[in-house]
Amino acid sequence: MSGAVIAGIDMIPFGRFPDRSLEDIGAEAALMALADAGLTIHDVQAFYCGSALQATAFPGQRILRRIGQRMMPVLNVVNGCATGAAAFREAVLAVASGRHDVALAVGVEKMDRGLIVMPGRPADFQEEGAIGTITTPCLFSQAGVIHSAEYGTTFEQFAKVSVKNHHHATLNEKAFIRRETPLEEVMASEMIAYPNTKLMCSINVDGAAAAIVTSEAFARRHGLMNRAVRVRAAAMLASVFTDMEDGLTDFNEVTRETAKQAYEAAGLGVEDIDLIELHDCFATAELLHYENLGLCGKGESGALIDSGETALGGRLPVNVSGGLLSKGHPLGATGIANLYEICLHLRDEAGQRQVEGARIGLAHIVGGMTDYGSASAVHILERV
Amino acid sequence: MSGAVIAGIDMIPFGRFPDRSLEDIGAEAALMALADAGLTIHDVQAFYCGSALQATAFPGQRILRRIGQRMMPVLNVVNGCATGAAAFREAVLAVASGRHDVALAVGVEKMDRGLIVMPGRPADFQEEGAIGTITTPCLFSQAGVIHSAEYGTTFEQFAKVSVKNHHHATLNEKAFIRRETPLEEVMASEMIAYPNTKLMCSINVDGAAAAIVTSEAFARRHGLMNRAVRVRAAAMLASVFTDMEDGLTDFNEVTRETAKQAYEAAGLGVEDIDLIELHDCFATAELLHYENLGLCGKGESGALIDSGETALGGRLPVNVSGGLLSKGHPLGATGIANLYEICLHLRDEAGQRQVEGARIGLAHIVGGMTDYGSASAVHILERV
Repeated sequence: MSGAVIAGIDMIPFGRFPDRSLEDIGAEAALMALADAGLTIHDVQAFYCGSALQATAFPGQRILRRIGQRMMPVLNVVNGCATGAAAFREAVLAVASGRHDVALAVGVEKMDRGLIVMPGRPADFQEEGAIGTITTPCLFSQAGVIHSAEYGTTFEQFAKVSVKNHHHATLNEKAFIRRETPLEEVMASEMIAYPNTKLMCSINVDGAAAAIVTSEAFARRHGLMNRAVRVRAAAMLASVFTDMEDGLTDFNEVTRETAKQAYEAAGLGVEDIDLIELHDCFATAELLHYENLGLCGKGESGALIDSGETALGGRLPVNVSGGLLSKGHPLGATGIANLYEICLHLRDEAGQRQVEGARIGLAHIVGGMTDYGSASAVHILERV
Repeated sequence: MSGAVIAGIDMIPFGRFPDRSLEDIGAEAALMALADAGLTIHDVQAFYCGSALQATAFPGQRILRRIGQRMMPVLNVVNGCATGAAAFREAVLAVASGRHDVALAVGVEKMDRGLIVMPGRPADFQEEGAIGTITTPCLFSQAGVIHSAEYGTTFEQFAKVSVKNHHHATLNEKAFIRRETPLEEVMASEMIAYPNTKLMCSINVDGAAAAIVTSEAFARRHGLMNRAVRVRAAAMLASVFTDMEDGLTDFNEVTRETAKQAYEAAGLGVEDIDLIELHDCFATAELLHYENLGLCGKGESGALIDSGETALGGRLPVNVSGGLLSKGHPLGATGIANLYEICLHLRDEAGQRQVEGARIGLAHIVGGMTDYGSASAVHILERV
């Protein structure tokens, strides 16, 4: 992965924009990232566009046209919630291959409310839950319940994830919910699927984020290295959604394997990481991923959230952006938004929520549909 | 693009398989291509899966699971009718970058009948034709009508494309329609949109095709070069669907620009090409693409089909497989099926329809939706 840097990255504030189209917000994010890099669309040689829900409807071409451009290699990619990270990774590969100097990755989504229904071909596709398998909220809740049974993890410990991430979001003007949510409020919030209350579920919002990946040689040649961030590892693996066969006792292996590949590729361990953005689609998920990413041993994540070490100011802050629980979760955009947060810290531009002296950051994502499949991506970024 | 070869490639016979799922036929094609290469799924390091209609529903993961595998980098890609070719091209880039030795590309589709409705997010998507723009059959027909008005191209000349391609398909046991269609029958067939009758429209069928791309070094090391085919160029461009603004007089620029890039990348001209598989989604399209790909000058495609030079036995045979008109057009599978046909000839394995002494072949595809966007891919392959 030597040689690929993020020369520019940005996201629009996440929210609900009934009057703005996918191409409106995707083009805005692309132009913001280009401006951040000090480049223009004419510098872009390849464009990877990720939208988890609209991939089949030419989102990349629509965004390109909205920018007023044509005749560029555009590839629309999709991998569930890992879609944005997958688009970014292809941009990294396109640059790392030496084929292109500059690649654009956009993640974008216009969301409905409530339980997410993935579009598919009507004759051959049934919505999640209608095929006799578990829905996503129930899946992540069940994994939490099993963790509780095995390790004594408490409802309160899961709820603390939400308190922490909402607190972080009060420091992030691009987050959707920016208010403190005390522990009692989180626990008393409407129960969605025990132990996840409504405030412990990620929020469906519209959003877009974009990154400009260039070769390090290009960035040096054009004086872009002063704010560039180096890509040390770009790992992605797909699998079955989860080892449902194993009764969710070991949720989830695809994250563990992907993280392992990323650490190996970077030649780094979790002890080298200064901050992490991980996939807190539900509060239970954050604790499970502490263990999957190696922040603590098996069954120790309850104690880790209690310790405060994963809060801003702690030893290894997690989801300083506010995470999906507070920032919101526009599926295809989330992967690049996570990378954006890491980059802000590695560029000392995170303002009030800056992780002081951050040198290495890790962005994790995992997506999937029960009975269909999964994908996880782990990127490790380094301050130049 | 130096260094990437097709070590194995295959397709299932196209047809209508109401009892077989997308993962059934996708896995079958993948295993056939692996067998063709003499490799197994354990040799594959990256998997690009193209499905134009089901991209959002984890087709790659479902196919991987059907093969009995997990934990592999899988990326689902989509670019309309160019989806299969786009998946293949990413596999080529992944290998050409030196990151992987072996990449698998699968194109797969389960089709409905009649006018194709692309799936998309319900709240933000309207089916083609319902948004006040032209449907695909009307678009290609209108482009033909304008060609007739400008250059005197006749209904009979367009119909001859169908006669030729159906004749070719009688020699291809994997084609869906395998019978001669005399000129009178083609012209008297149900009129869909003048001048394209029903026999001049491509057929919705289910299908799957797969290719194994390896580095030339890997192929040499493993004794695979005796049947390998070299990838000389892998060009892809996206744009607006067509220059609707120009009244379809110049249909379509994205194919011309992509072909230009491919010829330049290969250092070859149309005079070097021995056979072509091009995107005959409608009979009118084939004549237009003769001009777009440089087989003849502007307005000369009517005379070219009359000359017989693009029929098997002619100077530059086009769509010897039977083309989309006879073989069928399972959107996401078509791009790799085209490449399969070229490979058969470059490996002297095309049987009765072998283009004698074929050294260089070109596969073209173009997809799009009016008002949304387009993508074209042109690959140039060479006998080793």
